[in-house]
Amino acid sequence: MTGPDPERLDMIALACLVEPGTPGIVELVAEQGAGVVLAQVRAQRRASRVVGRLDPEQVPGMLAEMARRGVRVVVPGEAEFPSQLLDLPEPPLALWVRGPLDLRAAALRSVAVVGARACTAYGERATVAVAGGLAADGWAVVSGGAFGIDAAAHRAALAIGGPTIAVLACGVDVAYPRAHDALLARIGDSGLVVSELPPGSHPLKHRFLARNRVIAALSRGTVVVEAARRSGAVSTASRALELGRVVMAVPGPVTSMASSGTNRLLHEQMARAVSDSDEVVSLLTGCDVSLGVPGAAAGHGGTGPEDLDALSAEARAVLAALPSRGASSVEAVAGRAAVTPAACLAHLGLLEIRGLVRRAGSGWRRCA
Amino acid sequence: MTGPDPERLDMIALACLVEPGTPGIVELVAEQGAGVVLAQVRAQRRASRVVGRLDPEQVPGMLAEMARRGVRVVVPGEAEFPSQLLDLPEPPLALWVRGPLDLRAAALRSVAVVGARACTAYGERATVAVAGGLAADGWAVVSGGAFGIDAAAHRAALAIGGPTIAVLACGVDVAYPRAHDALLARIGDSGLVVSELPPGSHPLKHRFLARNRVIAALSRGTVVVEAARRSGAVSTASRALELGRVVMAVPGPVTSMASSGTNRLLHEQMARAVSDSDEVVSLLTGCDVSLGVPGAAAGHGGTGPEDLDALSAEARAVLAALPSRGASSVEAVAGRAAVTPAACLAHLGLLEIRGLVRRAGSGWRRCA
Repeated sequence: MTGPDPERLDMIALACLVEPGTPGIVELVAEQGAGVVLAQVRAQRRASRVVGRLDPEQVPGMLAEMARRGVRVVVPGEAEFPSQLLDLPEPPLALWVRGPLDLRAAALRSVAVVGARACTAYGERATVAVAGGLAADGWAVVSGGAFGIDAAAHRAALAIGGPTIAVLACGVDVAYPRAHDALLARIGDSGLVVSELPPGSHPLKHRFLARNRVIAALSRGTVVVEAARRSGAVSTASRALELGRVVMAVPGPVTSMASSGTNRLLHEQMARAVSDSDEVVSLLTGCDVSLGVPGAAAGHGGTGPEDLDALSAEARAVLAALPSRGASSVEAVAGRAAVTPAACLAHLGLLEIRGLVRRAGSGWRRCA
Repeated sequence: MTGPDPERLDMIALACLVEPGTPGIVELVAEQGAGVVLAQVRAQRRASRVVGRLDPEQVPGMLAEMARRGVRVVVPGEAEFPSQLLDLPEPPLALWVRGPLDLRAAALRSVAVVGARACTAYGERATVAVAGGLAADGWAVVSGGAFGIDAAAHRAALAIGGPTIAVLACGVDVAYPRAHDALLARIGDSGLVVSELPPGSHPLKHRFLARNRVIAALSRGTVVVEAARRSGAVSTASRALELGRVVMAVPGPVTSMASSGTNRLLHEQMARAVSDSDEVVSLLTGCDVSLGVPGAAAGHGGTGPEDLDALSAEARAVLAALPSRGASSVEAVAGRAAVTPAACLAHLGLLEIRGLVRRAGSGWRRCA
């Protein structure tokens, strides 16, 4: 990931020039290489939505400065880049990341919890219950770092020492909203602060919509807690639905404007109703943790048990090495499957996304 | 319907002997005649759940006494008997009815609004909004006459002079709950009080479940406003779902026990979320009254537009005589279709059930 890789530098330089949400750039890079695309963009022949922010010559200096401040960059194809972001028609060209977690690993088992800035006490209470329960169960809580539901979701995860990821609509070095300076610092200390915008970028209006698509694509499901009918949270839910992610909404009083968007998502069957974190987990894993009966299988791609043939031989060996009752440690499963613990964990993460396995305490087991 | 019809008297006598919910009796009557089945039941050779309540010899006297008190009896096959009750595996053998409406006609355009006896102020408010809106739109509000949500639903309909139907788990002459004596009298004055139990029957525990199946089958859809997870209202919803009726639930705070059953129905996708009467009507008719786009077509049998061939020539003429925008009066439609106004109204009711037409103001129009 370090070292002078010219293709990587060109990709980051491109990410500093092209506005997030511009479609087709990643395919173009795959076809022609980042250097060619960068030259085209610089010549203004491509990408009408180009905004000048940082010249390519400045990129190495920026990277060095960011590294000093604890910020790294990951680009598509690198180990820490979450491959599910490539489900987007306009995936990020690069992600600036601050924090001690591995982004790809944390995102594999993550849920977005989003909602209104102007939330009610009810919405805040429901957020703390849902996000706190998810974080206690080891799920990373993804949100946007905004006032209201977003902040309640991050804080609930932090409060129990659980993982949380803030995806910003500005540079990771920009404190927005300013009042969340300390909150974002805490998230960066124990979780992750992420942005596809280069450092110094301001939170322009259209960047919130672009950011919402990253939240939707990064996480395995999105829970909307309180939202008005036309709101950022509803747009995140729509993007998540387009991407085949699990979309959930917390029901609220039909007399409350703050719940009008969530209740509408439920009425339109765009979201499943969830009342607590157990219901969220049951929808995400296909294991009904509260009742012990299988729920709806879900996840990236929504692979069902009938697709076992699609698994690699090694993945099938890991699956076969898991108990269907109780739980086994990663080391024990790795031993039985004759794979390294690191490979075993990677397979487990992918099998979990397919709804085939789940964490149980500190170990793993097969889903029914 | 009047006059000494021995088969009819035998059927009513049977209804006075057999406990509601006993399966197979209506089929048996169709095969062997009510007289034979009655003799078998009296000889205790059939129907283990028989309870002695009224000897057949007493039936003519009871009918005369009930007629003096404004109570009529309708049996399957008669004009006022709602044929959708025959969707039940154990349809009522007879219905005792008090009130000025025609039961079959009112039930054709009816919605059950049910819920917890121990409701909250929120539940009562939501009930008044939903049931009041439905009644204002000409829908008969069906409920069970109980405390809480049921009473709020009936009262909301009465308050705007709309139709409402109370289906009791006791005889129509028994005031239960006693505190609803005046409410049931008001419903009988302008709507309908209905029971499959003969006069004088007490509200025994199992009769509430049997009554719930009648509410579910009678109405085109069931809205549950507030309910605990294991409750009569949830059982009504389950029966309605089995019968292919539209099942709806009003979302409520996930922090409220009174909404735990409704939110669970939503989570399990057993019910569609509804926030107001417009959303209810859109699900029942397939016409989205709030947005003007087609929703889910629904109704008894769930006939879609592709089944136009199944309509009689006269029904098709009525349909063709309707405007797709604006509205026409029954008389105007009858004139264009060359049918009597009474026949026209009957066809309109049946077409409405199929989701093909809907009321618009004081007239009618075709659905999109």
